[in-house]
Amino acid sequence: MTSTNTIRADRIIDRCRQIAACTDIPGETTRAFLSPPMHRVHALLRGWMEAAGMTVRIDAAGNLRGVRPGPTPQSPRLLIGSHLDTVPNAGAFDGVLGVVLGVAIIEELRGQHLPFAVEVIGFSEEEGVRFSKPFLGSLALIGKLDAETMARADRNGVSVAEAIRIFGLNPADLPAAALSNEAFAYIEFHIEQGPLLESEDASIGIVDTIAGQTRMSFIFEGHANHAGTTPMHLRHDAMAAAAVWIAAVEDYANTHTGLVATVGKVETSPGAGNVIAGRVTASLDVRHASDQARHNAVAALIRSAKETAAKRGVQLVTHTQLEQSAVPMNAHLTRLLQAAAAKAKLPCPTMTSGAGHDAMIVAQRLPCAMLFLRSPGGLSHHPDEAVRPQDVEAALSTAIEFLVLLRDDKTTPRDDHA
Amino acid sequence: MTSTNTIRADRIIDRCRQIAACTDIPGETTRAFLSPPMHRVHALLRGWMEAAGMTVRIDAAGNLRGVRPGPTPQSPRLLIGSHLDTVPNAGAFDGVLGVVLGVAIIEELRGQHLPFAVEVIGFSEEEGVRFSKPFLGSLALIGKLDAETMARADRNGVSVAEAIRIFGLNPADLPAAALSNEAFAYIEFHIEQGPLLESEDASIGIVDTIAGQTRMSFIFEGHANHAGTTPMHLRHDAMAAAAVWIAAVEDYANTHTGLVATVGKVETSPGAGNVIAGRVTASLDVRHASDQARHNAVAALIRSAKETAAKRGVQLVTHTQLEQSAVPMNAHLTRLLQAAAAKAKLPCPTMTSGAGHDAMIVAQRLPCAMLFLRSPGGLSHHPDEAVRPQDVEAALSTAIEFLVLLRDDKTTPRDDHA
Repeated sequence: MTSTNTIRADRIIDRCRQIAACTDIPGETTRAFLSPPMHRVHALLRGWMEAAGMTVRIDAAGNLRGVRPGPTPQSPRLLIGSHLDTVPNAGAFDGVLGVVLGVAIIEELRGQHLPFAVEVIGFSEEEGVRFSKPFLGSLALIGKLDAETMARADRNGVSVAEAIRIFGLNPADLPAAALSNEAFAYIEFHIEQGPLLESEDASIGIVDTIAGQTRMSFIFEGHANHAGTTPMHLRHDAMAAAAVWIAAVEDYANTHTGLVATVGKVETSPGAGNVIAGRVTASLDVRHASDQARHNAVAALIRSAKETAAKRGVQLVTHTQLEQSAVPMNAHLTRLLQAAAAKAKLPCPTMTSGAGHDAMIVAQRLPCAMLFLRSPGGLSHHPDEAVRPQDVEAALSTAIEFLVLLRDDKTTPRDDHA
Repeated sequence: MTSTNTIRADRIIDRCRQIAACTDIPGETTRAFLSPPMHRVHALLRGWMEAAGMTVRIDAAGNLRGVRPGPTPQSPRLLIGSHLDTVPNAGAFDGVLGVVLGVAIIEELRGQHLPFAVEVIGFSEEEGVRFSKPFLGSLALIGKLDAETMARADRNGVSVAEAIRIFGLNPADLPAAALSNEAFAYIEFHIEQGPLLESEDASIGIVDTIAGQTRMSFIFEGHANHAGTTPMHLRHDAMAAAAVWIAAVEDYANTHTGLVATVGKVETSPGAGNVIAGRVTASLDVRHASDQARHNAVAALIRSAKETAAKRGVQLVTHTQLEQSAVPMNAHLTRLLQAAAAKAKLPCPTMTSGAGHDAMIVAQRLPCAMLFLRSPGGLSHHPDEAVRPQDVEAALSTAIEFLVLLRDDKTTPRDDHA
């Protein structure tokens, strides 16, 4: 696919960069849940949305919601969304691009009749930075922003409810943030945050499943001892046990298709070069589109850790921090997306999303689909995070074709008034 | 060997505990180079030494030196020594035991004629804590406390020279701290600080060599990436590379007799469970009695690290922090010690010292020998560090036999006046 219509793609990228300038910390892009710069983000988006004929409101969870009306107020409603918050020192595209693309889709539709409304949602929170809990925006949409979450405090002791009030909103209005009965589907555009599309030379990819995740810590308890005076046969070396296990983790993932397994954090105690490690704490992150495959992997890796520990007289303790099932995207919507990419003559591999996204939450209530845009260098959560204009163009072309296919699909709910 | 004469062993242990009460930090035993409590240590030892008929002085490096005179002031002189400083939160025996045992040996000799003088030295510094440089006491003895060392500053900006002045001594007198031409041999008693004697059910062991050491850091530079979105075949995982190497380090040491190799400190960066490690820094500590065996090991382990890194597209950088040759003890003195243990009917394995000791420094000028005492649980540098009375008794009996053998040995320099 060559780069056509790059003016509209360039405009999308430029808008993302305008939003990236709204930041809690000057000189970088850092935007936590409902921090003051989010007012400016909302103002920018509201301007573009209203210019495109949309009706805009901010719900009580701080989600920006712009509606292109359907034929009547009761028309079925397609949702397009992603998030507006960022990780610390972020790039300009993670989340924001999906919202700005949603607005551009509406702009491209101007004049065209659709038998349903389209609502573009900029979720207030997905990254989990401020309150150590992600998806606050999409949880509000599905009516699951519960009392425990509302009471969570940030590091300054401000609760979610207080943060909402400080931003000028009223937590009592949260019920009105929940999605209406008219909503029938949700689609999300997001940068891939990984290297797969780049390695396959594709602009876009379709997510069929958001992978399930297990996050654990493995604690190897050996005996700290003098590195010079303790012969090898009298050691209980926690680091040696952990190392053999970490090598086995990599080996297991290499030999099981679709699995990723990572030991990203290792801490040695006492942590001196001339002392045998008495304790090693290692993280484990395992993801797969199949929950069964993931459970099998975790069980095998626990067995492997026990064996390698036992051989060295080292004890093993494990803790599970997160256990999250895989979330399949809607098969019918996914087929429509594939057909749309084909109509746009775009190669578009189907892939698993290894990262979590708002679609994972919304899928509890609505059929969902996701389209990834290539991440140059696989880079994300980094100031150098980028997106190529031709890939934005490819996503936009596919989205327009998707809306046409959705409009014409016989299973799509429609409002044929007016 | 059953426990006989435990009164004298108990007294030695009790004296070590009295010295352990002299501390920079109440409630633990922490005694840095020439900190104020060292005055009390000197006073205690001086009292016991003078009661045993010794002449005592403190040299300009803060070493306590008690002499049991020989037949004339020019008599040959045997040195018995170890150190009086400790690591932070130490036990009561590391170093101190060797000095207190030296005094006890003199007490046991009372009345017996020897054709040489005996000087018991309590070195002011061996652990390297205060000035990040060990062996200050024994370096002064061999005349190698150089200007660079004297100018080193502790964390309060106090130099070694200033610390000496503050203690009431004069750095200008350092030349008089150097050992006299009359000195002909040095023997050091020290706890093993390891589990070997305990595992062999032996009270004492003879050190034939102080192992050479190499200390390095290995830096594996991969690419930090998202643990969920980066497929296994597109990773450059620094921790996986390091883990395979650490396992190879253990395997190499297990299959090469007499070698110990340790990776005690591992740091992952960025160090998050959901991020593939972009950089891992791992320590390597390799020791062996044979320098050639140690060099071979280091070369093999660098090769192994390069291979495991290259397989993963990971770069390797290594730094060498310490490269120290093995120091053999004097073969003749060692044979005399072995004969002494045999006369005392004590099983006494010959072993390599994996840790450094003052004998390693003194060996640059004098024939040296070392006797280890069993460390219960292999414990050292720990408040629970201990020594058993029967093992102290075994060391004392062996020392007395050693002095008799040394006295009667035809190669020993003697002063047959008076």
